[in-house]
Amino acid sequence: MSLLEDLHWRYATKKMNGEKVPQEKVDYILRAAQMAPSSSGLQQYKIIVITDKALLEKIKSISYNQSQITDCSHLLVFAAWDGYSEERISGVFNYMMDERGLPHSTMDDYKNTILTLYATLGKDWEAHHAAKQSYISFAMAIAAAAEQKVDATPIEGFLPDKLDELLKLKGSGYKSTVLLPLGYRDEANDWLVNMKKVRTPQADFITEMTLADAADVEEMPVMPSLGSFTRK
Amino acid sequence: MSLLEDLHWRYATKKMNGEKVPQEKVDYILRAAQMAPSSSGLQQYKIIVITDKALLEKIKSISYNQSQITDCSHLLVFAAWDGYSEERISGVFNYMMDERGLPHSTMDDYKNTILTLYATLGKDWEAHHAAKQSYISFAMAIAAAAEQKVDATPIEGFLPDKLDELLKLKGSGYKSTVLLPLGYRDEANDWLVNMKKVRTPQADFITEMTLADAADVEEMPVMPSLGSFTRK
Repeated sequence: MSLLEDLHWRYATKKMNGEKVPQEKVDYILRAAQMAPSSSGLQQYKIIVITDKALLEKIKSISYNQSQITDCSHLLVFAAWDGYSEERISGVFNYMMDERGLPHSTMDDYKNTILTLYATLGKDWEAHHAAKQSYISFAMAIAAAAEQKVDATPIEGFLPDKLDELLKLKGSGYKSTVLLPLGYRDEANDWLVNMKKVRTPQADFITEMTLADAADVEEMPVMPSLGSFTRK
Repeated sequence: MSLLEDLHWRYATKKMNGEKVPQEKVDYILRAAQMAPSSSGLQQYKIIVITDKALLEKIKSISYNQSQITDCSHLLVFAAWDGYSEERISGVFNYMMDERGLPHSTMDDYKNTILTLYATLGKDWEAHHAAKQSYISFAMAIAAAAEQKVDATPIEGFLPDKLDELLKLKGSGYKSTVLLPLGYRDEANDWLVNMKKVRTPQADFITEMTLADAADVEEMPVMPSLGSFTRK
């Protein structure tokens, strides 16, 4: 099946049957999530995997009692950096340069540029920005699960502060962003499984634009070339 | 090739060769983006497709002069809602209910619940939240492009305010979130193509947790069940 067919097959499973997902499939899904691209390659997020039913029960109670939290096989909790710092960025870039056999200083100009930019946008923006990157990884996990014919339910409906407290994320520099229970659909008891999948009609979703459709913006700011920072 | 192999094949192409991507492949990538899941199924984003070189030149100049903007075949501009409103949400839900042959009122309780919740989080949060959904769609486009052996470069490095002005998004209720040029790599002139792909080691990226690792949170808030809103 193609990715597009997989995306038609998948749906936000509302009722799971408790069956275990084989470990090799879970590992495959996690590897796909790990291979996702991220802003500046920082991978400013991680995944916590939970199968312990007692812990899942506690998470369910702060997640609007959604049954998939406890009926799933594995719960993936995505958590992203709560902000950027020189130390954090250097940690990732230095490792990257070591793996590529390049001096750490290769990334210095680029690192300073993004840190300067981020500082103007504020800590709240930074946390949202890091969270956005985790959504790319989250999407790759959703696509990988669909490819493996594993059901998955994207879940934002939980109390993030409470979850951060429960999972000891507070003070760790990470904030929970989104949940993905993995498991198998309980077809007989899932109200959504046979509902029509609805998407915004293509004509509303996709617009084509040419210069004639654009605004007449006279003055374009003069920007430095990004290549100058990243290729030394 | 599997999704995981596709994710190994892809990279953030730094130099494209100007070759055209066949329309059927572009359509496929757009359909995958359209099939992405989104919070409450709202699809609170859209895609603007640009091939006009004169317009791409203007966009390049507000995107750190990144050459992929003009050397690509098609530029996808993702744009998300700048906030939520009763009218916007009803528009989507009513269409969904019509497609499913259900009364509009089916979603009333759920709609009121999310509107009440969003109101407590503020307009800035709302825009970030909608933008996050666009990143799921963005990721599906990245995965679909890789499957089709089309190169793509995730780009956040642009001036969103200027782009919103240029593309007449200001006042439209949408804000640009992220760019994805589609095209083909120019292997001879791309400094990144032969660099080692580096990801956070699995031991740092993935943590397993049980109740024993979690905090001892005595009082869990009593939450309503989500099912009560969405299944009537």
